Amino acid sequence: MTMSQERLPPLSSIPAEIACLTDYEPYARQRMRAQDWAYFSAGAADELTLRDNLASFGRLGLWPAALGRFDQPSTRLSLLGQAMEYPILLAPIAYQRLAHPQGELASVLGAGAMGATSVISMQASHFFEDIAAQAHAPLWAQWYWQTDRAFTLDLLGRLKTAGYAALMLTVDAAVNGVRNQEQRAGFTLPAEVDAVNLRGVSAPQGVLGAAGTSPLFGSGLLNSAPTWDDLAWLVQNSPVPVWVKGIMRPIDAQRALDVGVAGIVVSNHGGRTLDGAPASVDVLAQVCQVVQGRVPVLMDGGIRRGTDVLKALALGATAVMIGRPYIYGLAAAGAAGVAHVLHILRAELEVAMALTGCNTLADIGPELLYQS
Amino acid sequence: MTMSQERLPPLSSIPAEIACLTDYEPYARQRMRAQDWAYFSAGAADELTLRDNLASFGRLGLWPAALGRFDQPSTRLSLLGQAMEYPILLAPIAYQRLAHPQGELASVLGAGAMGATSVISMQASHFFEDIAAQAHAPLWAQWYWQTDRAFTLDLLGRLKTAGYAALMLTVDAAVNGVRNQEQRAGFTLPAEVDAVNLRGVSAPQGVLGAAGTSPLFGSGLLNSAPTWDDLAWLVQNSPVPVWVKGIMRPIDAQRALDVGVAGIVVSNHGGRTLDGAPASVDVLAQVCQVVQGRVPVLMDGGIRRGTDVLKALALGATAVMIGRPYIYGLAAAGAAGVAHVLHILRAELEVAMALTGCNTLADIGPELLYQS
Amino acid sequence: MTMSQERLPPLSSIPAEIACLTDYEPYARQRMRAQDWAYFSAGAADELTLRDNLASFGRLGLWPAALGRFDQPSTRLSLLGQAMEYPILLAPIAYQRLAHPQGELASVLGAGAMGATSVISMQASHFFEDIAAQAHAPLWAQWYWQTDRAFTLDLLGRLKTAGYAALMLTVDAAVNGVRNQEQRAGFTLPAEVDAVNLRGVSAPQGVLGAAGTSPLFGSGLLNSAPTWDDLAWLVQNSPVPVWVKGIMRPIDAQRALDVGVAGIVVSNHGGRTLDGAPASVDVLAQVCQVVQGRVPVLMDGGIRRGTDVLKALALGATAVMIGRPYIYGLAAAGAAGVAHVLHILRAELEVAMALTGCNTLADIGPELLYQS
Amino acid sequence: MTMSQERLPPLSSIPAEIACLTDYEPYARQRMRAQDWAYFSAGAADELTLRDNLASFGRLGLWPAALGRFDQPSTRLSLLGQAMEYPILLAPIAYQRLAHPQGELASVLGAGAMGATSVISMQASHFFEDIAAQAHAPLWAQWYWQTDRAFTLDLLGRLKTAGYAALMLTVDAAVNGVRNQEQRAGFTLPAEVDAVNLRGVSAPQGVLGAAGTSPLFGSGLLNSAPTWDDLAWLVQNSPVPVWVKGIMRPIDAQRALDVGVAGIVVSNHGGRTLDGAPASVDVLAQVCQVVQGRVPVLMDGGIRRGTDVLKALALGATAVMIGRPYIYGLAAAGAAGVAHVLHILRAELEVAMALTGCNTLADIGPELLYQS
Repeated sequence: MTMSQERLPPLSSIPAEIACLTDYEPYARQRMRAQDWAYFSAGAADELTLRDNLASFGRLGLWPAALGRFDQPSTRLSLLGQAMEYPILLAPIAYQRLAHPQGELASVLGAGAMGATSVISMQASHFFEDIAAQAHAPLWAQWYWQTDRAFTLDLLGRLKTAGYAALMLTVDAAVNGVRNQEQRAGFTLPAEVDAVNLRGVSAPQGVLGAAGTSPLFGSGLLNSAPTWDDLAWLVQNSPVPVWVKGIMRPIDAQRALDVGVAGIVVSNHGGRTLDGAPASVDVLAQVCQVVQGRVPVLMDGGIRRGTDVLKALALGATAVMIGRPYIYGLAAAGAAGVAHVLHILRAELEVAMALTGCNTLADIGPELLYQS
Repeated sequence: MTMSQERLPPLSSIPAEIACLTDYEPYARQRMRAQDWAYFSAGAADELTLRDNLASFGRLGLWPAALGRFDQPSTRLSLLGQAMEYPILLAPIAYQRLAHPQGELASVLGAGAMGATSVISMQASHFFEDIAAQAHAPLWAQWYWQTDRAFTLDLLGRLKTAGYAALMLTVDAAVNGVRNQEQRAGFTLPAEVDAVNLRGVSAPQGVLGAAGTSPLFGSGLLNSAPTWDDLAWLVQNSPVPVWVKGIMRPIDAQRALDVGVAGIVVSNHGGRTLDGAPASVDVLAQVCQVVQGRVPVLMDGGIRRGTDVLKALALGATAVMIGRPYIYGLAAAGAAGVAHVLHILRAELEVAMALTGCNTLADIGPELLYQS
Repeated sequence: MTMSQERLPPLSSIPAEIACLTDYEPYARQRMRAQDWAYFSAGAADELTLRDNLASFGRLGLWPAALGRFDQPSTRLSLLGQAMEYPILLAPIAYQRLAHPQGELASVLGAGAMGATSVISMQASHFFEDIAAQAHAPLWAQWYWQTDRAFTLDLLGRLKTAGYAALMLTVDAAVNGVRNQEQRAGFTLPAEVDAVNLRGVSAPQGVLGAAGTSPLFGSGLLNSAPTWDDLAWLVQNSPVPVWVKGIMRPIDAQRALDVGVAGIVVSNHGGRTLDGAPASVDVLAQVCQVVQGRVPVLMDGGIRRGTDVLKALALGATAVMIGRPYIYGLAAAGAAGVAHVLHILRAELEVAMALTGCNTLADIGPELLYQS
Repeated sequence: MTMSQERLPPLSSIPAEIACLTDYEPYARQRMRAQDWAYFSAGAADELTLRDNLASFGRLGLWPAALGRFDQPSTRLSLLGQAMEYPILLAPIAYQRLAHPQGELASVLGAGAMGATSVISMQASHFFEDIAAQAHAPLWAQWYWQTDRAFTLDLLGRLKTAGYAALMLTVDAAVNGVRNQEQRAGFTLPAEVDAVNLRGVSAPQGVLGAAGTSPLFGSGLLNSAPTWDDLAWLVQNSPVPVWVKGIMRPIDAQRALDVGVAGIVVSNHGGRTLDGAPASVDVLAQVCQVVQGRVPVLMDGGIRRGTDVLKALALGATAVMIGRPYIYGLAAAGAAGVAHVLHILRAELEVAMALTGCNTLADIGPELLYQS
């Protein structure tokens, strides 16, 4: 697609043509640098997993229910003791000032208007405290393992003080995925955007080795990759409950339970790490089979419709997270776009529940799924 | 597709290029407002179910028969005591004056010329009595549950008096589906078209809630959704036999039998309610397995060919209904278009029966179906 | 595709760009009236079966053989006592003067140069005797059941005298299929082309009934459709062996054996009759399972490559027939085109046999097929 | 695609837009004659196998691993006693001067910079000795069976002297495949390019027979096709270990073991011989099941990503070979392009291992594969 190089300003009102989440995509694309669009939208390598995250939901059918009785229908839930109006959170996404001048500040403002919990990326382009100041709904923080434990304990303390209610350690990215679209677009952070919360931390800034050497294995980069022992340390030292994000294999779900995590996020990192990984929703039931309800299970990857939320819950998820869809709402229309994205998805979920005869989330189970 | 905004008048004769039902689509589209085309043609959300209704028939093969003996071949049937020349009815579709100036009057005129039964939508844009006056073939009426029982009994009496022979309660639409195409096209009824038979009735005109509230569940709209008890009341109080339209789950078929319905329509509302619902024809055999012939079973959704009719009957349907195809015939050429659509489909059914060795509808069974 | 209305003359030499059978298609299309292209190329209705005939071969894999020993390799076979150099015949196709001025005369001339047997359609546009005069290889005749038995016996005698070695009764066309492409193109025979061998015969020239009547079943057309008893009569009265063409169901293969046919042709009439019928090659093994080698089994439908011939033989066919491919060769380049088509296909078959380690046709069996 | 007829010179530096192997394709195409592009890129016939080689890897999923512990991670292996840094070799490809003026000299220079073993085609466009003089990494030689045993023994001696460490006999090409793209492009070798190592050898230069004759079987060409006995002779007389390339059937793997080969290459000749053959990776596990580790198993066909290498190893391959990808690197940028192709693939393999939790090649097994 030929895209204008001129970057349009955010919309001041939301066009009537935007009727569903994916309708935001062209509006967002026109309001980003081409390289930032590549950064947010791309998946790893040939984007097999990226596409399968979307396609997987289309392979799952739903049984419509005839008639039914609705008595104070509701989408409410409680997640580790935290009440939520509906089972949708904002997934952690880095550098949101690439998408909109206010970045994470606008995202949490929009989420707050809708009562939705946001998970703030450790690579946010605003300080955790500044983001918290804009929030009208609970915040959680995403975490990449840091080898500097002093820095870790200090930042964990800051997060606790700022009111972050949970921590979500990403466990599926020992190394960045091969994101060719991003490489081809020549993506680099502009001068005014950086991971402000990581300023000053000593981190492995290794780069892949040159031709003739072992590019990754010879670089020492993997020396700083976290282990199960590191996770155990984090669980023991975190002042807030620790989720692990990026569990796909049932055996890893078991290990996470053994270490004592508060919750599990089934995720393939939005198709951005290992290309060829299955769609999140395709392994969800296997993970939930292992977990047996001992901790809550979230999922992300490919949620674009209220029926997708319903399907994920029918397979055992407690709630879902959305990523790119709210970034596109943010890029297109700032806080209002984020709020609108959440409103559409919530409304679609309620319609889907009504048409499948579900009065509350407790009515959502695997018997809703149609197997062709 | 870029479509001329100018709306052409109905055809005065049918072009030779129209050889099958779908050939009517471009002619119809040119003769409607873009928003009315969106209203009639759209399905819910991503239109997965809309497309699967069509694709599902392509997945079913038919065994051709060699040679064969034809002795006064016929497509006749009897449906609840009503003789029909062939097993095809017109499904209920609202607001037909959007498609053609004469609306339902032209549809029933065309159907009458072909001896086909029409099911008239409760949201017809002509009075039930005026429609009946144009009919040369039996009429049935479609019904959306009304909480006002006095109105209900009054209108049922009017229908009986006007000669409507059956009632078909829609049970799959506790709430409207998420019809994005319609939203994007900005569909609204023009001033001169309304549901004339519902004038004056007290109905829940709720709208979805604003951002930050529970859009559907908080609106009270579902309070007026019908229940199985409501259906039982209708069955007991209707002066004509009551069909239920929109049964997909086998368990709902059983409930409908328990309540005493006269017949069941397997339907997903033309893919307009729950996106992700299976194709009607894919669940037909399961429903018929429950029904065991105790009541007749109709189906709609995706019928475009005589072979589709044959496949539905082979899976257990007693007859089928068509929807969009006759609306497109109506929009293109009025009553003549509707009649032509029925003529083509009837002819194709006879050809399909001849090539599969079926002398009468009784010869049509599951052994005709080829499983790859 | 926009096609020039100007009809080009046949090629005087074969372009080097023509490397396989389908390469002839654009050359042929430019050398026919648009309506004649529709007549030859179209399938029934939505052309599901037409396309599946082609797609079905792509679903069958072949095991390549390593090394191997070739000792006077050969593709020879004997079919009902008739020696053939290779297992490929020309299928019967009507009105070949629509494709090329010399029509069937050119086809049999090309076939003769390659030593291939042609099956001449009863609806040929040249007299059986004139065609035979051009032939340098055996001819068979195709037959549509005629209710006039005196005419039948007379024409059978003429065929025998002219040297036709076998008769092939088409049993899958009680009525013409619904060929919409042909209808849309307004196909009619030009004044100078007709079924000359059927001149003067009393045949049912019924047309489908008008709107409001039973279009086919009310027309009496099916009264003249042949029955198994008619086939039995033909087998007993024909001076040459009788094949049946158009067997798909195993049960019909059994009936044909019971009646005493000399051979069976598995065919869906090139996808031109019942749309939704399976691909010929997909039912071939089932038919051969019934036949158990008691009579030879031919197949047609979708053969475009030497590997397709190999696959059909691996599934049990004794030989195959090709239809449209040689018509396109004929239209493009007359007799030379027909010969070239046969040469390409024969060469491809030999290459395929060499690469799968087959020295003779007897080495071709189901173990060559790869099941994914 | 319309391609400029003007042939661009090789790149002097590698553009940043080249991020993965297939990114080289348009650059390569612009730097070859159209007929040479057809020669290298084409597959047999309809290219079903060519495409399936690529598609097959997309059908195999990979389980991502959470967390993990990396301790001196490595991709090293030993192949018949020869140490390799990573399990990727360059497959034999003929006439590389068609792709780049320096041809094989540039390829082995690039491979040497990356420490990769090259398998040099017997139809190389440089002398074996000249190629060896440019090599900084081990070389092997590919072999087509020659009926002239004196020539064979002489050339084997030359290869041994020049330092070639192994011989790879191609066993899947009793005859060339039907490469229509090549035929349509009118491919012929230019005057300055020939198989220099075969000059003077008496070889069957038969051509396919003319129309009316048996094109292949009547030509005598297959008389010179190698047999299992010929392979046995070669194994006994070769001064270096003999691999067989082109084994697909398990039964042929068994025969090769019986004859005493040093190793087996699962290959369908890049989709260039038997169209319809399965993808190499789809039969790999079956072959390895027969081999039971008694000899190493290589595979080629469709490797474009590090994840593809990982999948092949998970199914039992010891290492893989790449073909077209390095030729395109060669055509685009000479030795630097070949080295870059190897560098990308090696880096992707290490990333894939890291994300699946593999510290060494020994950790790669079938449990990594996700079956949907």
